Formats: sequence, C-alpha cells, structure tokens
Amino acid sequence: MFTGALPWRRAFAAGALFIIATLTARAQAVDPLPSWNDTASKARVMAFVQAVTESGGKDFVAPTDRIAVFDNDGTLWSEQPMYFQLAFALDRVKAMAPKHSEWKTKQPFKAAIEGDMKTLAAAGEHGLLELVAASHAGLSTDEFAAVVKDWLATARHPKFKRPYAELTFAPMVELLAYLRANGFQTWIVSGGGIEFMRVFAEQAYGVPPQQMVGSSLELKYELRGGKPVLVQQPKVAFIDDKAGKPVGIHKAIGKRPIAAFGNSDGDFQMLEWATSAPGARLGLIVHHDDAEREYAYDRKSPFGKLDRGLDEAGPRGWTVVSMKNHWKQVYAPAR
Amino acid sequence: MFTGALPWRRAFAAGALFIIATLTARAQAVDPLPSWNDTASKARVMAFVQAVTESGGKDFVAPTDRIAVFDNDGTLWSEQPMYFQLAFALDRVKAMAPKHSEWKTKQPFKAAIEGDMKTLAAAGEHGLLELVAASHAGLSTDEFAAVVKDWLATARHPKFKRPYAELTFAPMVELLAYLRANGFQTWIVSGGGIEFMRVFAEQAYGVPPQQMVGSSLELKYELRGGKPVLVQQPKVAFIDDKAGKPVGIHKAIGKRPIAAFGNSDGDFQMLEWATSAPGARLGLIVHHDDAEREYAYDRKSPFGKLDRGLDEAGPRGWTVVSMKNHWKQVYAPAR
Repeated sequence: MFTGALPWRRAFAAGALFIIATLTARAQAVDPLPSWNDTASKARVMAFVQAVTESGGKDFVAPTDRIAVFDNDGTLWSEQPMYFQLAFALDRVKAMAPKHSEWKTKQPFKAAIEGDMKTLAAAGEHGLLELVAASHAGLSTDEFAAVVKDWLATARHPKFKRPYAELTFAPMVELLAYLRANGFQTWIVSGGGIEFMRVFAEQAYGVPPQQMVGSSLELKYELRGGKPVLVQQPKVAFIDDKAGKPVGIHKAIGKRPIAAFGNSDGDFQMLEWATSAPGARLGLIVHHDDAEREYAYDRKSPFGKLDRGLDEAGPRGWTVVSMKNHWKQVYAPAR
Repeated sequence: MFTGALPWRRAFAAGALFIIATLTARAQAVDPLPSWNDTASKARVMAFVQAVTESGGKDFVAPTDRIAVFDNDGTLWSEQPMYFQLAFALDRVKAMAPKHSEWKTKQPFKAAIEGDMKTLAAAGEHGLLELVAASHAGLSTDEFAAVVKDWLATARHPKFKRPYAELTFAPMVELLAYLRANGFQTWIVSGGGIEFMRVFAEQAYGVPPQQMVGSSLELKYELRGGKPVLVQQPKVAFIDDKAGKPVGIHKAIGKRPIAAFGNSDGDFQMLEWATSAPGARLGLIVHHDDAEREYAYDRKSPFGKLDRGLDEAGPRGWTVVSMKNHWKQVYAPAR
C-alpha cells in the first residue's frame, strides 16, 4: 500500500510540473496585441513600451508620468460617412422638428431634416456646430446622457448595420489595455463632445469619465424643482481640435503626454506637443486605407482629413499604421 | 543541552506573541486623524467613510464613485490677510513695475505697487482679476511654474513668517490621506488658478495635477524657436467659483462627488451639488474661528466670506468644523 502510493505521487508531481511549465510558456507567448499583424508599427509600439517601462533603462518613465492620449473619431472608432455624433445630432433635429416649424425654412436645419448632405457639408464647421448646439442644448447633463444612451441602443450604422458603439477598432482597444497593463494612464482627447463620449467610452474603451477631454457647450447650474442640475447652453465653451488639443490636454492633465494617437490633421498639434520633448516619445497615426473592411480616405476627406500629417509623419518619426496591412481585424466580431 | 534549550524557545515564543499582540493593538488604535479632537465632526467624518466603504452595507459606494472634492483657499491652507495667489500677483506686479511706467498712474496697479490695500479691496473681483491677468500673462506654462516655485521658496507669510506652502492645515492633509486610504479619489476644486496650484499641490496634499479644477486664463499654443509652448493670455477662460464649481467639477470629473469640503460661500453650490443626491453624502465647512492660532472671520470677510453657508449648514446636514475647538493643531510644526 505505502509503496503503491509512490507512482501516484510521481504522477501528481509530474502533472503539476507540466501545468506550471505550460502556464509559464503561455505567459511568455501571450500576444498583447493579437489584432495587429507583425509589422514595423506593432514592433515600434512594443519597443516604446519596453523602453519607458524598463527599470533602470535610459528611457525609463515613472508610472505617474506615463500619460497616453487618444483621439476618438477615426482613431478609436469610425467617423464615416460622418462623425457619429453628427449622425446623432441629425437624428435628434429630425425628432425635434415637429416642435420647430421655423426649421422648415432655416438652414442648416432644413438640410438636416431633408437629409441634404451637400448643403450640410457646405454649411461648414459653423453650421454643424449650430446643429449640435440646437439639438443638445436645454437638456440637463443627466437628460442628455439618457438621450444618447437611447440613440446608441437603437441607431444603426448605414454601411455596417451595427450599433455605432460596436464600431470601435479592436486593435486600438487592445492597445489601450496594453498600455494600462504597463502602468500608463490612458486619456481620450477628442474634437467630439465630452458629454456624448462619456456615455459609452468607459464600457467601450475602459477609460473613465474623468480621463476625457472633449469639446463642450457652456453649462449652467440651476435648480429645477428644488434639485440642482447642470443644463447645456446653446453656446460653445471649448473646441478641442487642432491647437485646442494641447490646450485641452494641459488644462485637464497638467502633464505633457509621452504618447499620442490620432488619425487626422486635427490631431497634428497633439502629436507635436507629445513628441517634441526630450526622452522616448511615441506618435502614431491611424491611416484609413481599407475601403473593404472600413473606408479609404485621407487628403480630401470632409471628415478626418489627413494631409499635413501624412507629409510630416516621416521626418517627425511618427508611425503611420495602415489599417489594411497592419491590422488583422478592424472591428471585433458582432456580439 | 536539549532540555536547556526549551526555556529559550519558550522565551522566544512568548516574545513573538508579545510583538504580535502589540502590533495588533497598535493597528486597532492607530488614529487616522490625530490632529482632530474627538468631537462630533470627527465622528461624523469617520462614520461617513465607514458607511460608504462597508461591503454589503446599505450605503456602500464602489471605489470608482468615491469622489471627494476640496476647496483650497481657506479649506486646505490659509487665505488671510489675502489669498496667497493675490500676494504672489502683487509681488510680481511690483517686480514688473520698472518695465511698466504706465502702472504708476493706472489703477489697480498703482495701489498694488504702493501697497494701498484699501483701494485694492475697492477694486473688487474685476480689479483683482486684472492684476492676476497682467502679472501672469505672456509667460509659458513652464515659465510661470518656475516663477511660482521661486516665489514659494522665498516669500514669507506676514503673520507667521513661514513659507506659504507650510501654511497648509495639518488636519485636512490627514483627512485627504485618510480618504485616499479608503479608496477615494481626492480632487481640489478651487477658485484659485490651476497653474498656480499645480506647482505645490502634489507635494503639499498628495493630489496630482490631473485631479485639480481651478480658475484659468486662456492658453495659446504657439511655437517658440521651433518648440511648442502654451502661453497664458491676458484673458480669463474660466472662474471656478460659486455656481462655477459644479460646472468645473462636471467638466473635469463627469461624476457627482459624494463628499465636498469648503469654507466659504464660494463653496456653497459645490456642497449643494455633492450632497443633494440620494445615498450617503458628506458636506463639511471649515469655520475660521481661531484668532490665536490662525484667523477668525466669517460673515463680513472680504476673503472667504461665510454667511449663507453658516445659516444653512444645519438644515442641510453639513458639518461645521470649529478650527478652534475641533482641531488639535492648525499647521504642522515648522520643518
């Protein structure tokens, strides 16, 4: 009996060793960026992370200073055929139209109601802001969040027929998690509205509301039925785009990021700000060149135009990611 | 020999038990707020923290929602005989005066240079903002931080003859650490300038630059010698006071705090915003009633006026802390 137990013990010990060996091998083999093909851009990202996290290394950065900033539209999720927030604003203007008969003849509202995209495009940034302000204002921040949540649950993207919040880029969601696993604080710095993004960004990207910089309307503190609320006003408070991005970053974070991720010339100054200081820095541009799986556009696109960034990425040492060639998948499969 | 070893072993075991018992007793007896006298206000704070952190309790709040906001001037450090940032601005106006001969006849600059506090007080908020803007603008954020750092190292408070950064309230610094040890994220929400506070707040309070909300001037992104900088403009971007505080909180945090700490009517709406939602909430007002160890002032003070807050604290369930009676010490001893 006693000696008979030995083979069992040996088998157990061997099994335990096997399990330990397997787990160790798996830990070493785990790819933190499985949606990225093994190209130079993936290697560049991983080399940067290794450099700033290597204790005692010449490029080591303390965790408290590992700030990474991400544009949203076109960088973390799609932005075609129009910014998703604009699609939301148009849907909302249509829904509000019965109570605004004056919009039947007033541009850009008339074009919005009629779906006249040509006139809308011609209205430019000012016209679009007018739509956003009119469709967002008057609601308290809580009411607005509820309206956005409802829209995200019901609206479908015209090309992919999926909820907009599913059209986040799987490789970038992996990248956010990979950076956080390496002690980074990840921030979203977007031209999009901060109130709009906060509704879905924590679930979609793992970025909490307090790590978000965006455009905003003025807010007014008032009492409704004795309870305080914050009401969005029809007046733009801040546009977080182009040279506004470093300003927004500094106001919110007060530290200079060491890594910045964008896709359009609206992100140029953000990348410049993050990468033009001493030490290891990472600037990365997502290039939309995948007409089949997503969209192909750059220098002449009305949304997400990328022109100067394409020309200067090389000399500035920024990594340009080809969505078509560098990404195994664009979106995670439908849930 | 063998038996002789036993008493030694017994002594060792008894010693080990004694050490363990002592450490346990000490852990139970450690007071997280040693600068607070054992009064109702200390009990109220500790009961609140216990309620929101008790797993399974009816008032439990998840760590991600444990947001606490603190005013700075008069709540975390002194604000008499004038806001410390105003003392800085006055010193700076004096230092800049030789290059601004026009200030010799122009108010409020003339009063600032001459130390005419009566005229300065009469200039009101607008006049003070003019001084701040003129003395802060034109500097890049890095240059400004260096100037503030230098001032903090050299300037001395007129009454206490100590560096201003030493005049933080020891009981409040303990409170900040106590809340963080219980999973809270602590934020500063001050009418003071965010660029000014960031220079000392991390060291003084353990609050990092990205957990700060304050008043600010417009910033302009520009290239100086080919390098990007952010330059303060002589134009106020945001005043983080009164009804501006809930607005600033929402823009930066996007969550409603569950605890708010202030000392003046400038904090009224912040406390109202934090405490008028369901669940356990804590509102606390520091009352300056200690003329000997600090200053005594409230309803009629030009800086840090506390009038409505004193009247409404009772009905609203806010805790009023008497600095004189509830605090063992005001400042930590000189280093």
